[in-house]
Amino acid sequence: MPSVAVFGAAGFTGALTARLLFRHPSFELRSVTARSDVGRRLDDLYPHHRVPLTLEELDLDRHADVDAAVVAYPHGAAAPVVAALRERGVRLVDLSADFRLRDAMVYGAWYREHEAPELLEEAVYGLPELYREEIRSADIVANPGCYPTATLLGLAPLARAGLIADVVVDAKSGVSGAGRAATEKTHFVTVDENVAAYGVPRHRHTPEIEQELAELGADVRITFTAHLLPLDQGELVSCYVTPTEDGRGVGLAELEALYAEEFASEPFVELAGGPPGVRDVRETNICRISVHHDERTGRVIVFSVIDNLWKGSASQAVQNLNLMFGLEEGEGIS
Amino acid sequence: MPSVAVFGAAGFTGALTARLLFRHPSFELRSVTARSDVGRRLDDLYPHHRVPLTLEELDLDRHADVDAAVVAYPHGAAAPVVAALRERGVRLVDLSADFRLRDAMVYGAWYREHEAPELLEEAVYGLPELYREEIRSADIVANPGCYPTATLLGLAPLARAGLIADVVVDAKSGVSGAGRAATEKTHFVTVDENVAAYGVPRHRHTPEIEQELAELGADVRITFTAHLLPLDQGELVSCYVTPTEDGRGVGLAELEALYAEEFASEPFVELAGGPPGVRDVRETNICRISVHHDERTGRVIVFSVIDNLWKGSASQAVQNLNLMFGLEEGEGIS
Amino acid sequence: MPSVAVFGAAGFTGALTARLLFRHPSFELRSVTARSDVGRRLDDLYPHHRVPLTLEELDLDRHADVDAAVVAYPHGAAAPVVAALRERGVRLVDLSADFRLRDAMVYGAWYREHEAPELLEEAVYGLPELYREEIRSADIVANPGCYPTATLLGLAPLARAGLIADVVVDAKSGVSGAGRAATEKTHFVTVDENVAAYGVPRHRHTPEIEQELAELGADVRITFTAHLLPLDQGELVSCYVTPTEDGRGVGLAELEALYAEEFASEPFVELAGGPPGVRDVRETNICRISVHHDERTGRVIVFSVIDNLWKGSASQAVQNLNLMFGLEEGEGIS
Amino acid sequence: MPSVAVFGAAGFTGALTARLLFRHPSFELRSVTARSDVGRRLDDLYPHHRVPLTLEELDLDRHADVDAAVVAYPHGAAAPVVAALRERGVRLVDLSADFRLRDAMVYGAWYREHEAPELLEEAVYGLPELYREEIRSADIVANPGCYPTATLLGLAPLARAGLIADVVVDAKSGVSGAGRAATEKTHFVTVDENVAAYGVPRHRHTPEIEQELAELGADVRITFTAHLLPLDQGELVSCYVTPTEDGRGVGLAELEALYAEEFASEPFVELAGGPPGVRDVRETNICRISVHHDERTGRVIVFSVIDNLWKGSASQAVQNLNLMFGLEEGEGIS
Repeated sequence: MPSVAVFGAAGFTGALTARLLFRHPSFELRSVTARSDVGRRLDDLYPHHRVPLTLEELDLDRHADVDAAVVAYPHGAAAPVVAALRERGVRLVDLSADFRLRDAMVYGAWYREHEAPELLEEAVYGLPELYREEIRSADIVANPGCYPTATLLGLAPLARAGLIADVVVDAKSGVSGAGRAATEKTHFVTVDENVAAYGVPRHRHTPEIEQELAELGADVRITFTAHLLPLDQGELVSCYVTPTEDGRGVGLAELEALYAEEFASEPFVELAGGPPGVRDVRETNICRISVHHDERTGRVIVFSVIDNLWKGSASQAVQNLNLMFGLEEGEGIS
Repeated sequence: MPSVAVFGAAGFTGALTARLLFRHPSFELRSVTARSDVGRRLDDLYPHHRVPLTLEELDLDRHADVDAAVVAYPHGAAAPVVAALRERGVRLVDLSADFRLRDAMVYGAWYREHEAPELLEEAVYGLPELYREEIRSADIVANPGCYPTATLLGLAPLARAGLIADVVVDAKSGVSGAGRAATEKTHFVTVDENVAAYGVPRHRHTPEIEQELAELGADVRITFTAHLLPLDQGELVSCYVTPTEDGRGVGLAELEALYAEEFASEPFVELAGGPPGVRDVRETNICRISVHHDERTGRVIVFSVIDNLWKGSASQAVQNLNLMFGLEEGEGIS
Repeated sequence: MPSVAVFGAAGFTGALTARLLFRHPSFELRSVTARSDVGRRLDDLYPHHRVPLTLEELDLDRHADVDAAVVAYPHGAAAPVVAALRERGVRLVDLSADFRLRDAMVYGAWYREHEAPELLEEAVYGLPELYREEIRSADIVANPGCYPTATLLGLAPLARAGLIADVVVDAKSGVSGAGRAATEKTHFVTVDENVAAYGVPRHRHTPEIEQELAELGADVRITFTAHLLPLDQGELVSCYVTPTEDGRGVGLAELEALYAEEFASEPFVELAGGPPGVRDVRETNICRISVHHDERTGRVIVFSVIDNLWKGSASQAVQNLNLMFGLEEGEGIS
Repeated sequence: MPSVAVFGAAGFTGALTARLLFRHPSFELRSVTARSDVGRRLDDLYPHHRVPLTLEELDLDRHADVDAAVVAYPHGAAAPVVAALRERGVRLVDLSADFRLRDAMVYGAWYREHEAPELLEEAVYGLPELYREEIRSADIVANPGCYPTATLLGLAPLARAGLIADVVVDAKSGVSGAGRAATEKTHFVTVDENVAAYGVPRHRHTPEIEQELAELGADVRITFTAHLLPLDQGELVSCYVTPTEDGRGVGLAELEALYAEEFASEPFVELAGGPPGVRDVRETNICRISVHHDERTGRVIVFSVIDNLWKGSASQAVQNLNLMFGLEEGEGIS
C-alpha cells in the first residue's frame, strides 16, 4: 500500500485531505506536518474529521520517506517544498497555484517571481476530466483552483465546440474558501447577512481559467469576479457566454446534447435540469452543471457548483492520487 | 396632515410600509387591510414593527376615504384596486409590477393581460433619482421592482453618457424578496448553506430594466439573472458592461468622476471606494454603488446594493409619497 | 441479503433513511413509499441524497413483501401501519413516537388515543446504548426521539449511579427537526438571525425522557424546554443536574471517570474535553458529550450533541436494523 | 447642549454608541478615540453607522474637555481611564465590568486586582429599570453586562416578590457579543451551523447577576451558562426558577399579573404572550419578556430577549446619559 504524507495539514484543505487519506482503503497516511499548531492533534483542531494524528514540524529527512505527498502550502511557499520532494523522488499533488500556470512570466505577473520554474514543464494540470491520461504518469500534479475547477468543467463543452466568443464569470463562494486565518474578512459579523465582491477586477484565478480555456480551443480574455457569501462550503459559478458566429444558431436541445455527450462517462460530473444549488454537492467530489439558452440575447448561460473544499481542492487531490497510483478513480471519495 | 391607508399590509413590504407610515411625522396611517390574516394585529404578526393596528378586510367605501394609499398587492391583483382608488380620487403608490411597464403589450408578454391599461399613461415610474419632478404631481406612482432599482441606479450614469453597448446583470437577493409565502423555496433548510439561480433565463424584471435603460439612452437587450442567497434582507447587483466605442477609452478616473457628478446631490445614493456589501445599507433607503474598470477586457463593472424591502420597496414608496405631498423627501425614512 | 422498504420517505428523516439503506452493503432497499409527492423521484426531491428511486403510493400487498421496514410516519399515523406490517410478519423500526411510551395512558395524555396499544408490550426502545440486547431480537423497535437520544446518553451515567435529584434540560435544535412542512415557523425569514423557545412548558419528549430515566434509576420529573436555532442539522442539550445527597461530594475527576467507564466500549459515543459543538457530529451517528462540575452550586452540567437527522433519527434506525439482523452495528453508518 | 466623547470607539459597542450619540438631538459628539485603527474614519470601519469622524489617539488634555463620556474599554483597562476622567470632573458611563461589582474582592476573584477601588462606592449600577433615580445624579454609571441586563429584567418581579429559591440561567448569544477581535472563535466557519456552550462553569457575569438579585431580595447562588449561536446580534436568556415555599402556590395568572404590574410604566420593557425571539428586539433598546408556569414541576420559566449591542450595551448607555442629563429617557434611542 503506497504511503503518503500531507504537508501543511493545519489549514482547511490540508486537514480535509488528511481525513480522506486517513480513511482511504489503499493509501497509508504516514504523517501530517504543519507550520502552525505543531504538536496539536488534528482531532483536537478539527473534531469532525476524527484524525488521531499529531501535527509535526516539517523534517524532510523523516517525512519525505513516502511514496506520495500532498502539499497544502500557500502560494509561493509551496514551490521550494515541491522541489525538495521531487529531489527525493516523491510523487505529489500540490494544492497551491505554484504549478498551475505553465508560463513563469504569467505566474510572475499575477503572483510573484517563481522559485522553481524548471519544474513547470513536468507539472500536469490536475483536472482529471481534462487531463486524465497525463495525470496517471505525472510526478507533479498541480491541483486546480476551486473557481477554475467549476468554471472549466462548466465551459469545456462549449470551448471544445468552438462556441465561446466572450464570457463573463460571476462566482460565489462560501467562507471556507478564504481559509482558516481569522481576519476581519472572515469574522462572522462581517460575513453574516452580507454579500460583496472581492479581488475586483483582477482575481488571481483569471489567468488559470484563460490558460485552460485556450487549451480547449477558446482563446478569450474573460471577466472573472468573485463574491463572498454567508455560507461555509460551496461554490457556484454563473457563466454568461456570448457565442461565436457558429454558436448563434445553437439552441437549447443541441446544448443539452453537447453536455450530455461530453460528460456521459464522467463519474463526478452531473447534469441538472434546472439551476443547481451548492447544497446538492456539499461534501462530495461532484460538479453539477446546468446549461441554459437565452433566446432574447442569444447568450448561453451555464451554472456549475462544487464543494470548494472537496472537488475544489481536497477530494480532487485524492482523485488525482488515485489516478497516479493506478487505483480506482473514486476510491475513498465516493 | 394627509391621511393614508396601506392595502395588502400582511405581506413583508406592505407591513414595513405600514410601520414607516405609522411613525411618519407628516402622514396619518388610518387603516391597514389584508387578504389573509384579517382580524390579526400587525404587532402580533410582526412584533418588531410595533404597529398596534388590526388588519381589516378591504371595504373601499370605508378604507378609500383617505388622501393617499399604498397598494401592496400581487401583480395582477393590484390593477383593479388601483383603478377603484383612482375613481375615488385617491393618489397612490403601487408596489406591484402592474403600472411599471408603459406598454400593455409588453406587460402582457411577461405577466398577463392588463386589467386597467387605460391608466398606464398617467402612471409615473417611481424612481425618484430619475423621475423626481414627475412624481411630485403624479396620481399613480409605480414603485420600481427591487432589482430594477439597484440596477438602474448603478447603470444610469453610463447609460446617460452613452457608454453601454451590452450588459450582463448578475443579481443576488436575500429571501425576504421571495415574500412571506411559506413554500419549499423559502423553507430554511432549502436556503441555508445554499445558493442557486432562479427564474432563468426570463426573469420578469428584465423588461422593466430595459425600458428605463432605453429612456436613459441605452437601447440594449440585457441578460439578467437572479440568485437566492442565505440571508434575510439585502440585494446586490453585479453589472458587467461592455462599453460602446465611445466608452472604450474611458478610464477609472473618468468613470468615478462621472458617478460623482451624477449623484452629487442625491440624498440616498452613496459611492463606495470598494465593492459594497448589503450590510452597509441594511434597513436604510440608501443605494450604495462602486464602479470599476477591468483594463484587460475593457469592461466596466458596477456593484450596487440596496435593502430589497426598504429602497427596493417600502421606504422608496414613502420617499415617493413624500414627493407627492410636498414633504421633505427623506421624512420618516432617514 | 435482507430486503427493506421505507414507508414515508418524502420527509427529511425517511429520505435520509432511504439514502443510508440504498448504499448499505447488507440491505437491499426495495421500495420507498410516500403520502405526498407520489411519482416523484427521490433524487429530484433531494438531489444530495442521490437515490434514484421513485416514491410510490403505499400498497401493503406489494410493499410489505420485505424482511424489514422503516416507518417514517407522523405520530398517530404510524401505529396502524406498524400493526399492518406486524400482521404480515415484517420486522420494523418505527421513527414516530407511537411505540416509545410503554404506557398507553401516558401516550394518550401527551399525544392522542393509541390505535394499537396491544403492540406496546412487544416494542423495544431503540436506544442501542441502553437496550442493545433487547433490540437484537425485537420485531418492533421504537426509534427514540432526537432530544431523548441526546439527553438520555448525556444523563445515563449519572442516573445509573443514583446521582440525579433534579434536572433542567435546555435543548437547542436546528430547523430540520421541525420537518419538511413549509410553514411560517420554518420560513427562512422567521428563523434566520433568531432564536426562541417553543412548546413551553409541555414538550412531548418530556415523558419519554422521564420514562427512560426512571428505568435507569432516576425517578424524577424533569423540566425540558426546546429552542429553535438558525441552523440546519444539529442538536445540543444542556443538562443542569442537582445531585442527590450521595452526589454532593462527587468531584470533576470522579464524574469524568464515571463517564469514561460507562462509554468505554460504545462505538458511537465520544467524550469531549470541553463543551462540544453540533458541528463536531454533523452527518454522523455519533453522540458527543462533556461533563462539568460547578463547585459554587454543586450542580453537574452535561452537554450532549447529536445530528438530529442522523443519530437523532435515520442513522440510529439503521444502527437498530443492523442489530436486529445480526450485522456489524456500524455498517453503512460509519 | 452637553458635549460628549466616546473612548474606545473602534469596537462594536463603542462604535454603536458613537452612532447613537452622533445622531442624538441633545448631545454633541465631539470626539471618538481608539487604541487600534487610529486615523481611520468610523464610516470606513463601519459603513452602516455613517459616522464621518476620525478615530484619534487618546489625549486626555484634549479629549476630556467634555461634559460627558462613554468609556468602551476592555475590563481592567477601563478603570484608569475612568479615574482620570473623574479627576477632570467628567461624568461618564463605563461599558466595562470595572465598576459593576461593589466589592473589590469579588471583582478580584473573577477578574483581576482592581485599579481604582476607591471609586467603586460612587458608581451606580446602570440598569435604569432598577436604579433610575440614583442614575440621575450619578457621576459614574457602570453599564450592566448584556446577560445581566436580560436576566435581571426577567427575574426582577420574582426576586422582589420573594419567590426565587434557586435559578438556572441558560443564555444564548449572537457572535457580536464576542467582540470585534478576529479569532478562531469568531471565524465564520467556526460559528456557522454550530452551537456550543463556553466559559463553563464560571462565566464572569455570574457575580454581577447574584449581586443584583440579592439587592432585589433573592440571595441565591445561580447556575449561569452561556452559549454562542450562529447569528449576529441578539441574546436570549432562559431562566428556570425553583420557587420558594411561598411561591409554590403561585399560578400563571398571578405571575402574569405580577409582571404586568412591575413593568406597567417601563418604556423599554415589553411582555409577550409566548416565548419571544431575539428578532423581535433587534436594533432596539427593548427587553421583551414572557413568563410561564410548569405545573408538573412547579417551576417558573422566564424568557427574556435583548439586542446585546443595544439594550445590552450601547443604547442602554445612552438611556443612562439621558437620565444623567435630565433629558427624556428615550431620546435618540426610540
